[in-house]
Amino acid sequence: MRPALIPLLALLATQSGFAQTNAPADDWKPASSNQPGKEYPKVNSERRVKFRIVAPEAKSVGVTFRDSSPFTKGDDGAWYGHTRPLDEGFHYYALKIDGAEVPDPNSMMYFGAMRWGSAVEIPAADQDSYALRDVPHGQVREVFFRSKSTGTQRRAFVYTPPGYDENPGKRYPVLYLQHGWGENEYGWSVQGRVREILDNLVAEGRAKPFIVVMIYGLTNETRMGGLRDFDITPFETVLVKELIPFVDSGFRTLADQPNRAMAGLSMGGMETRTVTLRNLDTFSHIGVFSGGSIALADIKDPAAFKQKVRRVFIGYGSRELGGDRGNRGGDPKAAVAALKEAGIDAVFYESPETAHEWQTWRRCLREFAPLLFQK
Amino acid sequence: MRPALIPLLALLATQSGFAQTNAPADDWKPASSNQPGKEYPKVNSERRVKFRIVAPEAKSVGVTFRDSSPFTKGDDGAWYGHTRPLDEGFHYYALKIDGAEVPDPNSMMYFGAMRWGSAVEIPAADQDSYALRDVPHGQVREVFFRSKSTGTQRRAFVYTPPGYDENPGKRYPVLYLQHGWGENEYGWSVQGRVREILDNLVAEGRAKPFIVVMIYGLTNETRMGGLRDFDITPFETVLVKELIPFVDSGFRTLADQPNRAMAGLSMGGMETRTVTLRNLDTFSHIGVFSGGSIALADIKDPAAFKQKVRRVFIGYGSRELGGDRGNRGGDPKAAVAALKEAGIDAVFYESPETAHEWQTWRRCLREFAPLLFQK
Repeated sequence: MRPALIPLLALLATQSGFAQTNAPADDWKPASSNQPGKEYPKVNSERRVKFRIVAPEAKSVGVTFRDSSPFTKGDDGAWYGHTRPLDEGFHYYALKIDGAEVPDPNSMMYFGAMRWGSAVEIPAADQDSYALRDVPHGQVREVFFRSKSTGTQRRAFVYTPPGYDENPGKRYPVLYLQHGWGENEYGWSVQGRVREILDNLVAEGRAKPFIVVMIYGLTNETRMGGLRDFDITPFETVLVKELIPFVDSGFRTLADQPNRAMAGLSMGGMETRTVTLRNLDTFSHIGVFSGGSIALADIKDPAAFKQKVRRVFIGYGSRELGGDRGNRGGDPKAAVAALKEAGIDAVFYESPETAHEWQTWRRCLREFAPLLFQK
Repeated sequence: MRPALIPLLALLATQSGFAQTNAPADDWKPASSNQPGKEYPKVNSERRVKFRIVAPEAKSVGVTFRDSSPFTKGDDGAWYGHTRPLDEGFHYYALKIDGAEVPDPNSMMYFGAMRWGSAVEIPAADQDSYALRDVPHGQVREVFFRSKSTGTQRRAFVYTPPGYDENPGKRYPVLYLQHGWGENEYGWSVQGRVREILDNLVAEGRAKPFIVVMIYGLTNETRMGGLRDFDITPFETVLVKELIPFVDSGFRTLADQPNRAMAGLSMGGMETRTVTLRNLDTFSHIGVFSGGSIALADIKDPAAFKQKVRRVFIGYGSRELGGDRGNRGGDPKAAVAALKEAGIDAVFYESPETAHEWQTWRRCLREFAPLLFQK
């Protein structure tokens, strides 16, 4: 957001704080992200989340969502508190018990913010697009491949589309899809809903069936450290020299540049831009979700780029725009306009009323997938 | 254990409590079950586990392992405590912070005791048998199938052995493998190490490559309730009428009785006994791990059983024997001896120095797999 707006928005946030206003709507329902059989956390029609944690001897209980209510202890020894209205979609959080930050034992566990921990799913108007529906399903396969450059056996998740096993003579294009910083190779198939989104698009005839491959986007196995001195070469080596040959030999792929795409969110978007620009003979479709954009100045040989790259997709959540998220590669809308001006097939997508979160990236995938491998 | 022994053992447990004895060995190493980059929990050569949790304002911190040390707060606001020496293998636990029972944020998350929560892996002399080694790997596929009887889309994990995709003309036998009560369909492939155990056995030429299918062993999606009034029919319907046809149509199986096995642990062993005895034309190999045994009296038609069942395997942890765990079907060793006496191919396996835990079941699978589909 623009600096000048911050004080105003901060003021609005304070004024809309529930603590001083009416009681939240009393239509709480268990969150779909809960562990089996757990009543709490609950979500209401205002998109607030209410928590319950049994901690009879605690002095203070809270949650990492800003502007949440104070937690109060009930007669049952359980503490209750709730959030401000949240955006639609998926949000990581942790509980705080006397200074300890711990996962909510009632939530399913997701890897984000560099830990397996809790998160909550807020119902969304477009949730049917990422729901598990009664349509033919693809498979998500956990596979391991030998990586010489790192001396490890590395995990990949491979989504094979519906019909893959039933059509042993058919070959498929491949999308390599990366998570963000602090996340890992589980992100896209768990909170990202890759299977559901693509199964649904294929069932609706809106996307071609293709394979998706997801690996961990760093090579430091401890997942620590910052991005300032990030050297992408070790990851690029794993992806381009080791993973792609493994996938092309073990799966029925269309193993050529026109049928290979790369996309990623946030850090994975930065990785996508760097890796694809350096490997234009390997990838033909490029998707960058909340991870900067591609400026004309980034492209060394525009004629070669125009000839080789079939489509560029840049996506953002509306709440991210105007800030510094788009700075790499310049303002993303303007950058896409400039690409188009130069005759490159580029698309800009803005996810309404979402921030730097999974709801933005689910929608980016849903919008990107129908544009893949169409020409 | 026999009632008369309880007071004596309780006394021994008190006397061996570390709190009154020497300090634990100071050779702590991060547990392999930790989240990436986490130093704690640590395990030492005595197989004790040491925990660290930052909870600066807590009054009391503990862990669910019995006979653990008191937790004390360090100058860094973190609490430290450790366990008694534990058995080799995998143990679920939770931390207790001022009366709240929560997952240890440093542990990976596992589903057991009816929740996703923390667990710790204690190094074992035979851990190479379930390690991820540099051998050809099978895949673990997450698939969904339509279940008419329950009106749901149900998750299954399907292990396809190394070579499955490379040999499109080959068909494979199938083992249906069930978890225990309070666990779910993730158990065998995560803490049970199905992939690692079978990949290693196949690489050593000790087991035939076969497919393994794992589903949730109940049909109440909330995973609640006890076993007393457990009616197996809804699960049996899903398994026999819906899952098996789905697997036989979607995977390259040898879709006949001689090439179909069922096994399970604890509740899954009970389910295996009931389902196989009622479906002798469907299954030819039966594995019961810490879940009772099969007595001659359980078998309605011994001649038919002897003709149809190629192998019965009953396994237990040594620490379970002599108690009431084996009571269903009688003393398991005696029951197996009686089966043998009656001319049935039956095997008894005792896992040394393990209890009703995953180390027992990993070993049971390791011993059972080489006996499958051999004749």
